[in-house]
Amino acid sequence: MDLDAIFSALSHPIRRAMLEQLAGGDATVSELARPHGVSLPAISRHLRVLEGAGLLKEEPDGRVRRCQIDAAPLSAAFGWLTRYRVLREDRFARLAEHLEETRKKERKEERKHAHNR
Amino acid sequence: MDLDAIFSALSHPIRRAMLEQLAGGDATVSELARPHGVSLPAISRHLRVLEGAGLLKEEPDGRVRRCQIDAAPLSAAFGWLTRYRVLREDRFARLAEHLEETRKKERKEERKHAHNR
Repeated sequence: MDLDAIFSALSHPIRRAMLEQLAGGDATVSELARPHGVSLPAISRHLRVLEGAGLLKEEPDGRVRRCQIDAAPLSAAFGWLTRYRVLREDRFARLAEHLEETRKKERKEERKHAHNR
Repeated sequence: MDLDAIFSALSHPIRRAMLEQLAGGDATVSELARPHGVSLPAISRHLRVLEGAGLLKEEPDGRVRRCQIDAAPLSAAFGWLTRYRVLREDRFARLAEHLEETRKKERKEERKHAHNR
């Protein structure tokens, strides 16, 4: 895992927006480009940066290219932040709480979806 | 909080090493420079990048300049990663476990230090 490449990939708002979009599910290159008022070559460059950091996988799907997120490098980024205890103990506590909340919400949603099936 | 500046600041190994060092306690500019075989102007540029991202505060202390970490921007980086649920549920679970472990270890160390005082 190349932390330089990962953090650098996260340092642009368009690339973060792309990851946010992909976190909601796979998307084609044109779906990823749509929200941003920039040229396709610029979009393509951003996708290459994400791919270079291992955050994105692109696969041909008929005539289009489908992109999906690979979250493993983000775990490495989390790992760095936690391993070196750059955050204070109270921040850890608050983060742990926040994560617990998020997990509860996710479980609730999963149950709701299971129920609606 | 400028996420672009924060993630960009974290994308260089020397700047991450500086934050790791500062997480262990305040340091002077020359203490921060010592582990790295680079020029003082280069060190100075890295410090300016950290300062620009709000990760570092520098204060004069007699003849030297003391640096200290400000971890708040790192919480913002964590916030981004968690808010958009870029990580999967099981990753959250593992991270929460890891944080709990870290907190336990920190409490243990604090008790040890309190005991040795």
